Amino acid sequence: MSRPFLPGADPVGAALRGFARAHAGLVELSEDPVHLRARERDPRRSVGLVSGGGSGHEPLHAGFLGRGMLDAVAPGQVFASPHNRQVLHASRAAAGSGGVLHVVKNYTGDRINFGIAAERLRHEGIEVRRVLVDDDLATDSEQTATGRRGTGATVVVEKLLGAAADEGRGLDELADLGAAFAAASRSLAVAARAQTSPHTGSPAFDLGPAELEYGVGIHGERAAKTVDRPPLEELLPRMVDELLAALPPGPDDLLVLVNGLGATTQLELYAIFERVAADLDARGLDIRESLVGTFVPALDMAGFSLTLTRLHDGWSQWWRAPARTPAFPCQDQEAIR
Amino acid sequence: MSRPFLPGADPVGAALRGFARAHAGLVELSEDPVHLRARERDPRRSVGLVSGGGSGHEPLHAGFLGRGMLDAVAPGQVFASPHNRQVLHASRAAAGSGGVLHVVKNYTGDRINFGIAAERLRHEGIEVRRVLVDDDLATDSEQTATGRRGTGATVVVEKLLGAAADEGRGLDELADLGAAFAAASRSLAVAARAQTSPHTGSPAFDLGPAELEYGVGIHGERAAKTVDRPPLEELLPRMVDELLAALPPGPDDLLVLVNGLGATTQLELYAIFERVAADLDARGLDIRESLVGTFVPALDMAGFSLTLTRLHDGWSQWWRAPARTPAFPCQDQEAIR
Repeated sequence: MSRPFLPGADPVGAALRGFARAHAGLVELSEDPVHLRARERDPRRSVGLVSGGGSGHEPLHAGFLGRGMLDAVAPGQVFASPHNRQVLHASRAAAGSGGVLHVVKNYTGDRINFGIAAERLRHEGIEVRRVLVDDDLATDSEQTATGRRGTGATVVVEKLLGAAADEGRGLDELADLGAAFAAASRSLAVAARAQTSPHTGSPAFDLGPAELEYGVGIHGERAAKTVDRPPLEELLPRMVDELLAALPPGPDDLLVLVNGLGATTQLELYAIFERVAADLDARGLDIRESLVGTFVPALDMAGFSLTLTRLHDGWSQWWRAPARTPAFPCQDQEAIR
Repeated sequence: MSRPFLPGADPVGAALRGFARAHAGLVELSEDPVHLRARERDPRRSVGLVSGGGSGHEPLHAGFLGRGMLDAVAPGQVFASPHNRQVLHASRAAAGSGGVLHVVKNYTGDRINFGIAAERLRHEGIEVRRVLVDDDLATDSEQTATGRRGTGATVVVEKLLGAAADEGRGLDELADLGAAFAAASRSLAVAARAQTSPHTGSPAFDLGPAELEYGVGIHGERAAKTVDRPPLEELLPRMVDELLAALPPGPDDLLVLVNGLGATTQLELYAIFERVAADLDARGLDIRESLVGTFVPALDMAGFSLTLTRLHDGWSQWWRAPARTPAFPCQDQEAIR
């Protein structure tokens, strides 16, 4: 039993072809090896922005292809790293006069494959640097040599980097900025129901009706422990406490991302945002920017992640800069006024 | 047991407050009685567009508030019609010199409450007309006196009407256009898993792992029958056959909406779109416009609806006209070029 609405053969390929067709004015799909590129970029941009990773987190990454965000993307199979050839071809397509910046979520497979591609690109004379996104507080332990996982903050890093790249900044400066964006961000995710396994059609793990996976990953990685599900009024302040304690010092101006993990309704996500916003107000913090919706899901997991980013000088402006992509919301952007 | 991530008290109210805060530049919430209005409208628009209905279908309707789409919205509780006072106040807030047009999904409660509000508005000297959206093929039977339900096509009708209203057209012309948009649209929805009941936390009805609810409603109304789930390659042509047979004659230019019912991933929705598009190509039809995503869900139901709209002269242009709302995608719009 596979997922009910995925074709049995090459489901990711079918989805990518459908995506490229639906957004033909914005993106172009190449099939061998599979990668996508944006049709347009700001003429001031000299560094190509490339990301990618396993599928099943849509709209990440391909939904953020286009003017103001990413130039090319290498999508893997569901929850599997792309092949380094995909990253290589995506990077060649994206490279500008100033080189290529890879935005990589911190998973071993992604690091290896982007790393191999980077070596090959350097042999071809293309300058490459890498921004590692590692925002997931649940994996912030000295016991794990791999470090924190990359999750919801990826969309924040991609948006801010895109706007900074559009100002014509160089590779080293963008790499440093990307590292600063990631360092100023922490996320925490919880789930009440696992994603449906694409292979079995059943939940990837079992949770009781009153249980909560506190610190779940976006590939169905279970948390260190399953807890009794607290009411929202207890759950959210606990998450905020832990995120604020983990964030490096910085401005009290925050970007708040409430991200659905797949099967969480907008009613829930906005109600969560309302509670989190009231809590942050009460702590004297300033919510300068927000994003509420399903941007980095784990297939159809029922849960959400909360990301806080401390906004340093000028970052708000990059967040609000116009983007023209399939999935990043445009509503509060100046360009459409 | 309630839904895991909704506050127990006043969940819709909390969500609306969060929504209004997240999109404060675009919308404004009034609490007594509850309604929302857009902060801006095109100065050429003389007729206010008002919609509403039960909650649980977000981003419909409030996500489509704003320039180019709706002027005010009356949201009910989950799957429950708004009170006529809500519609009345939303309509007063939205009314222009040319009156108010109500966009109503065809459900008895909505018809009654919008109808009472319309009577009161007329007593106040405000002209009102109504567009009834009734696209759901599964309820196209002479046995049901209430007629077809309104589902996915609502977003199509709201987008096209918004653009037409921005050209300064009058109430009667817009009412006729809205009726034509609805008449040229048919939808069909299927589900592999019911939505989680907000009251019990369990699926609202049971389906076996190899079953499909063929012709499901967006409030968990079961289909006339449950079928063995066919593979996508059989399911989609059957749905397309039935939709094309039901559509009134008209141009071969189509708008295709693949709409997730809540827990359906973008991988699935784009794979479905790819198959449907190839099928329509093979039939010699022309997909002029498309929209793929979760726009009119039924809480977290696992399923999708397919809507086809025959595009008459000029409708494509209205579809592509700029909108500045929380949820309608902006990516292919001229304004942001």
